[in-house]
Order: sequence, then structure tokens, then C-alpha cells
Amino acid sequence: MRCLPDPQLQKLLDDDTGGGDLTTHALGIGAQRGRLRFQSRQLMTVCCTEEAVRLFELAGARATLLAPSGTSVIAGAPLLDAVGDAASLHRGWKTAQILVEWASGIASAASAIVAAANGVAVACTRKNVPGTKALSTKAVRAGGATMHRLGLSETLLVFAEHRLFLHEEPAATVARLKRAEPEKKVVVEVANLDEARLWMAAGADVLQLEKFSPEQIAACRLASADFSGVLLAAAGGIHAGNAADYVAAGADLLVTSAPYTAPPRDVQVTFGSAA
Amino acid sequence: MRCLPDPQLQKLLDDDTGGGDLTTHALGIGAQRGRLRFQSRQLMTVCCTEEAVRLFELAGARATLLAPSGTSVIAGAPLLDAVGDAASLHRGWKTAQILVEWASGIASAASAIVAAANGVAVACTRKNVPGTKALSTKAVRAGGATMHRLGLSETLLVFAEHRLFLHEEPAATVARLKRAEPEKKVVVEVANLDEARLWMAAGADVLQLEKFSPEQIAACRLASADFSGVLLAAAGGIHAGNAADYVAAGADLLVTSAPYTAPPRDVQVTFGSAA
Amino acid sequence: MRCLPDPQLQKLLDDDTGGGDLTTHALGIGAQRGRLRFQSRQLMTVCCTEEAVRLFELAGARATLLAPSGTSVIAGAPLLDAVGDAASLHRGWKTAQILVEWASGIASAASAIVAAANGVAVACTRKNVPGTKALSTKAVRAGGATMHRLGLSETLLVFAEHRLFLHEEPAATVARLKRAEPEKKVVVEVANLDEARLWMAAGADVLQLEKFSPEQIAACRLASADFSGVLLAAAGGIHAGNAADYVAAGADLLVTSAPYTAPPRDVQVTFGSAA
Amino acid sequence: MRCLPDPQLQKLLDDDTGGGDLTTHALGIGAQRGRLRFQSRQLMTVCCTEEAVRLFELAGARATLLAPSGTSVIAGAPLLDAVGDAASLHRGWKTAQILVEWASGIASAASAIVAAANGVAVACTRKNVPGTKALSTKAVRAGGATMHRLGLSETLLVFAEHRLFLHEEPAATVARLKRAEPEKKVVVEVANLDEARLWMAAGADVLQLEKFSPEQIAACRLASADFSGVLLAAAGGIHAGNAADYVAAGADLLVTSAPYTAPPRDVQVTFGSAA
Amino acid sequence: MRCLPDPQLQKLLDDDTGGGDLTTHALGIGAQRGRLRFQSRQLMTVCCTEEAVRLFELAGARATLLAPSGTSVIAGAPLLDAVGDAASLHRGWKTAQILVEWASGIASAASAIVAAANGVAVACTRKNVPGTKALSTKAVRAGGATMHRLGLSETLLVFAEHRLFLHEEPAATVARLKRAEPEKKVVVEVANLDEARLWMAAGADVLQLEKFSPEQIAACRLASADFSGVLLAAAGGIHAGNAADYVAAGADLLVTSAPYTAPPRDVQVTFGSAA
Amino acid sequence: MRCLPDPQLQKLLDDDTGGGDLTTHALGIGAQRGRLRFQSRQLMTVCCTEEAVRLFELAGARATLLAPSGTSVIAGAPLLDAVGDAASLHRGWKTAQILVEWASGIASAASAIVAAANGVAVACTRKNVPGTKALSTKAVRAGGATMHRLGLSETLLVFAEHRLFLHEEPAATVARLKRAEPEKKVVVEVANLDEARLWMAAGADVLQLEKFSPEQIAACRLASADFSGVLLAAAGGIHAGNAADYVAAGADLLVTSAPYTAPPRDVQVTFGSAA
Repeated sequence: MRCLPDPQLQKLLDDDTGGGDLTTHALGIGAQRGRLRFQSRQLMTVCCTEEAVRLFELAGARATLLAPSGTSVIAGAPLLDAVGDAASLHRGWKTAQILVEWASGIASAASAIVAAANGVAVACTRKNVPGTKALSTKAVRAGGATMHRLGLSETLLVFAEHRLFLHEEPAATVARLKRAEPEKKVVVEVANLDEARLWMAAGADVLQLEKFSPEQIAACRLASADFSGVLLAAAGGIHAGNAADYVAAGADLLVTSAPYTAPPRDVQVTFGSAA
Repeated sequence: MRCLPDPQLQKLLDDDTGGGDLTTHALGIGAQRGRLRFQSRQLMTVCCTEEAVRLFELAGARATLLAPSGTSVIAGAPLLDAVGDAASLHRGWKTAQILVEWASGIASAASAIVAAANGVAVACTRKNVPGTKALSTKAVRAGGATMHRLGLSETLLVFAEHRLFLHEEPAATVARLKRAEPEKKVVVEVANLDEARLWMAAGADVLQLEKFSPEQIAACRLASADFSGVLLAAAGGIHAGNAADYVAAGADLLVTSAPYTAPPRDVQVTFGSAA
Repeated sequence: MRCLPDPQLQKLLDDDTGGGDLTTHALGIGAQRGRLRFQSRQLMTVCCTEEAVRLFELAGARATLLAPSGTSVIAGAPLLDAVGDAASLHRGWKTAQILVEWASGIASAASAIVAAANGVAVACTRKNVPGTKALSTKAVRAGGATMHRLGLSETLLVFAEHRLFLHEEPAATVARLKRAEPEKKVVVEVANLDEARLWMAAGADVLQLEKFSPEQIAACRLASADFSGVLLAAAGGIHAGNAADYVAAGADLLVTSAPYTAPPRDVQVTFGSAA
Repeated sequence: MRCLPDPQLQKLLDDDTGGGDLTTHALGIGAQRGRLRFQSRQLMTVCCTEEAVRLFELAGARATLLAPSGTSVIAGAPLLDAVGDAASLHRGWKTAQILVEWASGIASAASAIVAAANGVAVACTRKNVPGTKALSTKAVRAGGATMHRLGLSETLLVFAEHRLFLHEEPAATVARLKRAEPEKKVVVEVANLDEARLWMAAGADVLQLEKFSPEQIAACRLASADFSGVLLAAAGGIHAGNAADYVAAGADLLVTSAPYTAPPRDVQVTFGSAA
Repeated sequence: MRCLPDPQLQKLLDDDTGGGDLTTHALGIGAQRGRLRFQSRQLMTVCCTEEAVRLFELAGARATLLAPSGTSVIAGAPLLDAVGDAASLHRGWKTAQILVEWASGIASAASAIVAAANGVAVACTRKNVPGTKALSTKAVRAGGATMHRLGLSETLLVFAEHRLFLHEEPAATVARLKRAEPEKKVVVEVANLDEARLWMAAGADVLQLEKFSPEQIAACRLASADFSGVLLAAAGGIHAGNAADYVAAGADLLVTSAPYTAPPRDVQVTFGSAA
Repeated sequence: MRCLPDPQLQKLLDDDTGGGDLTTHALGIGAQRGRLRFQSRQLMTVCCTEEAVRLFELAGARATLLAPSGTSVIAGAPLLDAVGDAASLHRGWKTAQILVEWASGIASAASAIVAAANGVAVACTRKNVPGTKALSTKAVRAGGATMHRLGLSETLLVFAEHRLFLHEEPAATVARLKRAEPEKKVVVEVANLDEARLWMAAGADVLQLEKFSPEQIAACRLASADFSGVLLAAAGGIHAGNAADYVAAGADLLVTSAPYTAPPRDVQVTFGSAA
């Protein structure tokens, strides 16, 4: 399933080639028939090949999906084929390639954390690159992770920056939230073990433990024994290299922004003239 | 000058908080007055603070620009202030912070390459994160670099993938392009020294030397002595760490994608209640 | 706070008067100065006066907000004033009036149910009139109610239509959902008491009781005694007239679509020529 | 014929399920094949089934139109079928259902007034729910009625609020309008019989009789005998229950907003797994 | 009053200078302060100076309106002033100038026909340049003419291409239209005097006489004596040079597309550096 | 290849017939089947028939392209066929016809200049009708000409209005630009022979000779002998009638706005009922 409808894909294309590829046009080669193939250059979890296929179609070519989003491939795996005139292929080429490389970078990074988490849920934050929420969400899911929250409007997450405006006991705050939004869990971000204990006692459903070390997580896990049902979400600085430690320390959920800064995965594009 | 007009900024905001911050609303604190400040947590070339100011305005707050895009600051420097009700501040907060952090990451990385290039022009490619061309272009310029090409429609850059469709001598190709587009330079991407010699001889204005080592650049520079006026653009794998070597080897221009994968620069956000 | 940014308000205006008011133009009265006032004709919870003010501004007039969204007023209360030339006033008039009348209809209906629910939360469904989500959400909140869910992408609500594709015990389903999305509550829609018991036993956090009578709610409440913490949301056919019965029967939340079909509240518009 | 092009339909879908149905995703059932059918639960004039078909296609399913807009059906009639994977069906389901229910409510209400009017034209006002003009217009026509005016920019309708700015005899006003816009009829809204007589004498082509009772209409009809060709449009408070009375009283046209507040017609949606 | 809201004006600007003026940027002069003035180079009816002012504002400058749309000016008249930094002035300059030149060309041409028509209404067709309806409508009105019809959806104009699908007497057609749309005039396009007589007899309200000479108009006028109230609209090939002849021949309305192909009026732009 | 994607074509259609053709609807002929053909009425270089085909499809008909953009045809040549119901054909008719007529006018005018230029490149300016850049660019290219510059953001063109802000020798300016943007040519607009000599000496790559007569061009050509490689672009007042003179005088490039004010080429539309 594509995550971007035609108008947004067209926008990506137009931002790059609103007036077509001038080089192709000036060379007078636009009407010749050609073909191209995308292949992985390295191990990757593929993402946005569906969008890439559609980009070539919008550019005037025909394209075939060879590896859908979410597929794990080794180097050399075919991802998509396109055929059409040279004007269309050159128009769609880089926009499609850059999209797949970037999205597969996120998906592969997410996938690596998921593998390390060994069954504990991995949720990515909303700190995606500005303007890329739909694509980033698709890539996160292609990698087997979930979204921490899509935005501010459907979940309850109490930051210290909210509490600055509160003048009541934590238990009163939690009780008010549960009454106002009975269908949502009350998540509270805390900065240390004392705060964690305070909000567990107040009845929070989930604690988001910001920049806790695995040792601090373990201490918090221990403390939570007195408060049945509270979940611990570890957040801040988590990546594939330390995810297992956080899981071992007792986290119920890993919250991470790491995939958004992952380097793109390389895609090789090979052109041919159509015989 | 802002690079994104209101509708696109509004879209960024709506993608995150279309229905407002539910936590603020459910807590009933939205009407209380507050203020916040953005400060750098580290050395950075600032970018997109103008857009951040406008995001807070669109969210319903008032904001003041303290460090315009392109400013170099040390850790602790104030970037912007905002005042307003808690609903507005919480609505604009993260969208604005993430934007400044990401754009300042690009600008700072571009700035580092520019510093290393010692007066030779640095141009960033069109391999920005999909959908971020306007913001990326602003960040590149904030860092003192220029854009290699905004898109395909206004410049001539002959790739091997174009030449596949040509059946003529290179000199004929260059002559045709110069006749068709007398106001543009003819840029040709080449993969090795032999190709470089071939296209210099054919009359290309600029050679884009793809993944040449500094040594290969130097050899090409030497070869170019016979062809007055040809410019050498080094491209592929260039970053702040090796830029000086490429310049020393004789490149007239450095073409790089490195800033687009730079990590975000940290911005500290401090809330206060408004007395 | 406005819930619609300028481009959408402009669209509302253009849909009605893209080329201006032909009658005003043909009469040649467009440049004369005038003023107008909006007043309630009946008891109402006001909504979208902020948007109405902005519509007049976009139409070329100046306007003053006299009763913000969420205010309860009696008949005759002033809601907004506008001054400007006749072309602008006639251009903005009906679009603004119809918006306030419609939105205040929803807000007033929501407010009546909230009053009847006596402290139990009232949530409105996503069955708003197609294309009006942002405005409808604002009206629901202006009336003191909350949104059941803004959309499908951030909450878990298991319908029978999902269960058709499941081949496992309910407890397994609930356990999988809790592991995959630890920050969300598991809500399950059930059609009768037997289903309710089944999913309480399975560990659901919230049961959405579809078209249960108050008596059936009461029976379900009784049954829930064995399952600590489960919440009961009554849904289907709830309105201001029966909300108290559902609350008395033990519902923890009332879910309703009734406000979306509420009749508009009447707004009186009085023009004057500006002395 | 669809009245909403793809981008607007996509917007409806994205407003509800921008990130897909989380429940389907978390349950892991998205790839299973299924089918569903829409059927009327009651007598109705169907509307927007073409848009519903397209919504399912945009959501990734295939759909078949079984009852086009404008069809009158009894309870149990099939309206559309859709087949596809569970992710697509769940994504499109409610958006499509709510659209057909709402639009068929308007169409059915309009149709009832048309039936009562016995051949006299029925025109619906521009008081549709804000933001729904295209859909509302389609529904009005599906019900056999016409639009009073699509907006302010192409017709002449002189309100008292225009006349406030005029300082001349009615005959002079009408003459000026006829000279300025010879291709349009001059329609004048009047509030009582005296005003009606005044503007008939002045030469108006059509009188819009605002909130006249059938008796007052009849009186006006009588008075109109002296003014050949003037048409009488009854407006304000007209519905299926009193339309015949207005026709009997001599109205040439019925102008009504009643269909816009008609309750939705119920559509039953039945899912099946695809064998 | 502006006829284009900000997003469309921004689009005009971005189409020309999405990334700013590269020349200004590369020269490093962007931050210097400057000013500019628009003046007419010839007699003209000014149009779109309001939009031009806003274009400069969107580009980052401040601007002052000196001659509103609809003003008749001689050569040398000041139209607008702008002040700001060089980057903003260069960004807005040509987009604003070309808009005023083009729109004033239409307005001036319309104005010339209106002057020649000596009080008879002049209506411009919908044959404006594709995509310019709002701007063209403004220019037509600035010149004192009106719009024949804004589109197909609010007026009745029966072409021969409609009649191809009819199999009934003209009188029956007219009667049906009057019953279906009592608030609209029935306009019929005819190609010769025989057709004109036929449709007058049938009861048409207005005849659109397509490509009639003044002599044929006069003959038609004579024939119309038997049919009280029918209006004659002359259409096709009408311009300022022959408009008086058509009026003298008895036309009640002149319908023309001529202004849309009028040459732009010249605007002189003078820059200065700000002291 | 189409130059406008669906949403923009839909916008063109909606601007004209958002609610469909009222005449067709009121006549009740919408469901009858028909066909139509577009044919040239005169010699022309065809443009935008691809867009016209798509407009008919968006209007609900099927259409066949008979003469692609860029084809030179004599009077009577078939351009496209469409079949469908009368509602769809009438909806698409005029929008499609006006588009082809207007775009073919530009293409034909550009083609005439290209023919006269006898192999010297012809470039059209950015002075297209506001809002028509994509369509105008397509038409320019269909006529065999190229675009001078798509916008301000990718080329260097130094106007006197830039030089006002410079305080250095021309050679310094040129050197700075070449260093900052090594991949772009430095184009300088000059107003007379003295300025031309000055900037040739300074090292400009291209001189844009504004409103030079052919004689002045010839003098400049002569002067350029001392400055190897400088190109001369003649601009201002060039049309098909004088293009050969400019070429004979030694211009390397002709820059013109003339095609944008060319009269539309006539297209005949013939309807038939479908047997």
C-alpha cells in the first residue's frame, strides 16, 4: 500500500523536474526507448518501492514492483524495473532512487533495533525530519516498529512542561485525566527514580523514563513491584547497540528516534536501451 | 527571510497537532500564560529560526527572533523567545524545536565543509531528504554553501545514462548542446581519467569527477592544462574531513551530499510560567 | 483559537462568493460604509465566532469578537461586530452566519448531553458530516465533550468486523495487542452481555457496549465486578434525553453521534449604514 | 458522475485514517482477503455511492457500484460491493458509509419535497453544512431538486440589507440592474405583502417571499395579476409536510434549506472473509 | 479588494523565484536597502496593483498602493512604491510587474469597448487564458464591463450542440427550462435570422446572436418587435472599433472575448538605493 | 507527455463547471450518448491536446489523441475525438477547446520565429501570462524554442538594477560570480554598445543586448572579436518578422516574449449524437 497519494508524489517529482530533464531534451534523446532496474547494493529492509513505482508512472514510464516495502534483502536483489522513453526514465530516476534509499535507511535501522529488542515493542518518536511524517511512519512500520504517537491530539503524555502549570497532587492529576479521557492511558515522562516513584504512586499507567541508563531502568522496575500494572517505557539514546540492555533491565517498551538519522541504504540503478 | 510560506508551516503544525495538544486540554491548563526560550546546547550554525517564530505565531503565541538563520553561535546562545497561553506554547513547541535542530544540523555541516574548502565553492546536491527541498536549500545557504542544481529543468549535466542513448562523437554532442542552450554551461559527469580527457577534448565546460580520489583529481588537473577554461568539480564522498585535500588537488568546486545526513544540533527549550 | 487556518476559510468564502456579490456590484453600492452585528436568537453554546471574525477580515472588513467559542449565552447576546464597505460585508455575511449557526448547533447539543451526564465523560464519534472534522471537533469541545477517537490511526478498537479475521482465543488477541501497543488501551465493541463477559474475561481495558439499553448496561456493570478496572462505554442512540439513565446504570463513558444532526442555532444579523 | 475528484476524496480518507487502521495493523490481519456489501436499511434516495466506490479504490480495494446516485430503493437493496485485503476494507469502510448515509439523507429529504410539490420546481438554498457545497449540490440534484443559487457571484438577489444602501425609487433600482446585467433575472426578497406590491410595481422578475404563510402567498398571487410575468418564490420554513400547501397557494418555486438538516439514512455494512 | 488570496500569490512568486534570486545572492547584495516605483508608461486602466503590493509583501518588502484597480491614468502616473532589502525587491519585481502589465492590458481593452458602447452593457466571455479566471474577472470589472457567465453551472445558454440532443418543438424546450429553473433567463445562441425568429417565437428571454453583422442585428431587432421583452446579445468579433455599430443596430448587450488577447500595457520600474 | 497533473486540470474544469453544465442538466439530456471531434481551422503547431484528452476523461468521457503537441498541421486536420454522455461532453468542451486554441497560438508563434532564426536558438522569456508557466513552457517547446530561464533561482543574469547595489569594477563582479557559481554562465544585460564593451572586457560569458537594433547588434558583434567566446543574446522586440535580421547581424541567441501575446489558433468542434 502506498502511503503518499498522487498529488504528493507529483509534488516530489515537480520539485525536482517541473519542466522535465533539460539535458535529455537538449540532447534530443527523449523519445528513445529504454529500461532501468533498481537493485540493493547492500543488506537492507526495503521501503517505499511502491511509491517509486508510482513516481515512474507519473513521469510517463511503466514500472514493476519486485520487492515490496518490508522485505529484507541481501546485496544485489532486484527492487523494481521500469521501461519507457528516455525522457520519462530520466525524469523519474533520481527522485525515486533517493526516496527508496532514504526510506530503506530508516526501515533498516528500525529493523535492527526490533531484532535487538527480542519481542519487546519498539516505538519511534515523532522527531522525524520535518515534512516527512507519512513516509517516516511507513518506514518505521516496514522495519517492524510502531509509532510512539502520531501527534499530540490523540494521546496523553504529561511532560514536566505541563506540570509547571499544575498546582495539585499527582494523584489528583491522574484521576482527573482518567475521568476526562477514560479510553486513553495516562503516560507521564519522568527524569529520575524519585519522580518515577511519585507518579507510580499517583496511578500513572505508563512511565516514560527519559534518558535512564539500563541500571536506572532496573531500579525502577524493582520499585514498580508495588504498583501493579504500571508499564515502563525507556526513552532517550536507545539504538540497536544498547536495546538488548534496556530489555534485560526490564523495559516494557523502547522509545527511540535513532532510525530518523540513519544513513540511506545504497540502491544501484542500471540503465539499458530497450532492444 | 522565511523559505516556507504559511500554508506549508501550517501543514507541519497540523501533521503534529491538528486537534491541539490533548494533554494540555485534558489537564485544563490551556488558558494559563507561559513563556519559553530556545537556546543552543552546542556550537552551531543556526537555521530556520524565522520559520520557528512563525510556527509559534500560527499556533497562537507571540515569538521573537533572537538569532537569525546563518548566525554562528556557541552553546547557550538564545535563539528565540515565545510567550502565550499554555495551549499555544505546547502546540508549537516540538514542531518548532525539531525543525531548528534538523536544519541547523545541515547548516552546521555545510559550514564546516565551506570552512575547510578555503574559498573554493561548495555545492550541495539535490539528494536532500524527500519533500524538504525548500528547507534544505535554505540550510545549505545558511551554511555558506550553494546548490549544485535545484532540479533537472534548468541545467545541463550529461550522465553516462544519457550517453547510452547517443550515437555520435563527444565533440558533436557538446557542440549541439552549446547551440541549443547557449546560456548554460555543459557539465559532463565522468568516472575516470580517460573519460575526463575525452570530454575535455570535446569541449565540455565543466567536468563532474565522480568518486575521484584527490590523487585522481590532481592527475585530471594536470591533464586539463591543454584545455583552457575547463572547470573540475569533485563529487562523491566529500566531507569536512577531506575537503581540503580535494581543494589542494586542484578542484574548482566541491559537490557534496554530506550535510543532508548530518545529525541534528541540540536545542534546549526552557518553559516558564508568565509572571 | 481558530481551528481552520486561512486557506480553508478562504475556500469557504470562495465557494460562496469567488467573484464577489454580483448584486452589490451591479447596484453600485460596494464602496459605501456599513456595519453589522451577529446576535443569538435563542439560548446557545456559541461556536466558531473566531472563524467568523476571520471570514469577515478575509472578505475585506474588520470584525470584533464579542462571544468566544464555548460561551453559553441567552437570546439577544451580541456575538460579533463587523464594519467595512458594503462589498466586504455582503461577501462575508452568509458564510460567517451559516458557520456559526451550524457549529453552535453542535456545541449546544453536546453541551446538553454533558449537562445530563453529570460528570461522566461524553465522547462524540467520528460520524461528523463528511469534510468537517476540524470544525466538528472544535464544536464538540466547545460543548464540553471530548472526541471518542479522531481517526483510526492512533487507537485500538476491535470491532466484530476485525474478529472475523481472527482465529484464536480472545485472551490471546488481547495479550497480543497489549504487547504490540503497550501505550494504548484495548477497546472492544460488543453487541450483547455474553460478548461483554467474554472480552472482560479476556482482559479488555474498555468495552464499547453497542446499542445496549440502560438495563443491559446495568447488568454488564454487575458482571464487571469480577474484572477489576474494566471500563464500560455506552454507545448508540444516546442523547440528552437518556444520558442520565445510562449514567445511572453505571456507564463510565457515553459515546454519541447525536450532536452532528442537531439543528443549527439561529443567529440574527443586523445591518446598519455607518454614520 | 463523481462530484469530488480524487484529492478531496483522499483528504476525507486521510482525515480519518492517515496512518491506516491501527487495530487491523496491530492484530496482524491486514493481508487477509475479505469482502463487504453496503445495503439500504430503509427506503431512500441513494447518493454518493460513486464516491464511496472510489474511496474503497483509494484505500486499496476494488469496488462495484450497485445503485447509482438518484436511485430510489427500498430496505435491503444492495448499494455497493467491495473486495480486497482487510487493511484496505477497514481503511475505507466508515468514511464511505458515513458519506453515503449523510448524502442519502439529503437526497431523500429533497426527493420528498419534490414529490409533494407536484411539478413545481424545488430549489435548495446555499445553507448547506460549511465545506460541503459540492457534495450537497449533488445530493440536492439526486433528489430531483435544483439549487437556488450556487453562490453570490452569478445571480441577482436584492435583500433588504442591500436596499439599506440605496436612495432611489424601486423602479430605478430594477431598471439599473436590468441594464447592467441583461442576462440575469432581478430577484427581490420581500418580507410582507406591501413590499411585494412595491417591487412587483417596480418591475422585479421574481419575488422571494420570506417566511410567508400559504395564505400570504395566495394574497400575493392575487396581487400579482396586475403584473404580468412576475414569479413568486416561497422561502423559509418549507418542508415536505407543507410544500403542497405552498404550491396550492400559487407559488412558482419553493426555496428550502430543510434537506440539509435531514437525518442520515441508515446503510448496513456486512463483512465476509473472501473464500 | 484583492481577488487572489495569499496562497495563489505565493504560488506566482514561487513559480518564478522559489529559491530567491540567485544573482542577488551570488553578488552578495541581498541585505542592502533599496526602493522602487512602478509608473505607467502609457494611458491605461490600471489593474492588479493591490495584488502587486501584496506580492512585494510576501517577498519580504513593504509596498504602498498609489493607483487602485479601475483607475484611469496617463503616462507617468505612479502606481506603487516598494522599499526593502535588495533580495526582496528583486524577488518580487518581475512577478509584480508582469501581473500589472497583463491585467491592465485587459482592463484597458475592456474599458475601450465600454466607452464605445455608450451605456449598453458589455460582457466578457469565459474564454480567458486558461487558469486566470479570477484575475481576468477582476480585470474585466476594472474596465467597467461585466462577465457574460462565470461558468456553466449557474446560467442557461442553449447552444446548437445542446439542441442536437433534443427532439421537440422549441416552445416545449423553453417551457421546460422555465419550469425547471424559474429564476434564470433562457438564453439561446442562434446562427442566423431564421433561427432567431424561431426561438423568439418559442419564448426565449435572450438571443445570443453569434457572428451577426450590425446589419443582421438590425434585421433581428426589427423582427423582435413582435416578441415583447426579448433581448438581443451580439457576440463574436466585437471590439472597440465596431462596438458602436452594434449598439446603433439595436443590440441590448455586447458579448466579447477581445480583451483577453489585448497586449499588456507597459509599466516602468525604477529602482533606487535607499538613502 | 502532459505538463499539468490531474489536480491542476481538475481545477481548470472546476473553475468553469464545478457544478456541471446547468443547461444540459435542466434540459434533461445529460444521459444521451454523443461524440465530438476537434479539428484545426487553420495552419498551426498543435499544443496541449494531451491535456485536452485528459480534461475530457476527468469530465467523464473517453477521448483519443489524434495530433500530439508539436505537430504541424494544415486546416482541417483532426486533433482529438471524444465520446461519452452529453453531460460529460458539454462539461469538458470549452475548457479543452480554449486550452488547445491558446496553447497552439503560442506554439505556432514560437515556431514561426524558430523558422525565421534559421538554426540560431530562440529562447522565450518568463513574461508568460501570470499563472501559466507550465503550460507556456510546454507551448514554447512544442514550437521548437527553449526557455530563457524558468525563474530567478538557477541562473545568473545581472541587470542594471543589480549593479545599482555594486561598488566595484565590472571585472571584480564577474570574477566573484564565477568563483561563487562555477557551473553557471555569467549573463549581463546591457543597454548600449559602451556597456557591452565594458562587460565583455570584464569577462561576461553572455551579453543580453536589450532593445538593440540589428545594426547595433552588428556593431557589438564586431566589437566582440577581441573577447573570445562571449555570446550575444538579442532581446526586446524580436518577432518572426525581424528575427532573420537579428541572426544576420550576428546574434547567437534570440530572446523573445512575442509568442505570449499571439492570438489563439482556431479549433473547430463538431458534435454528433452517437449512433
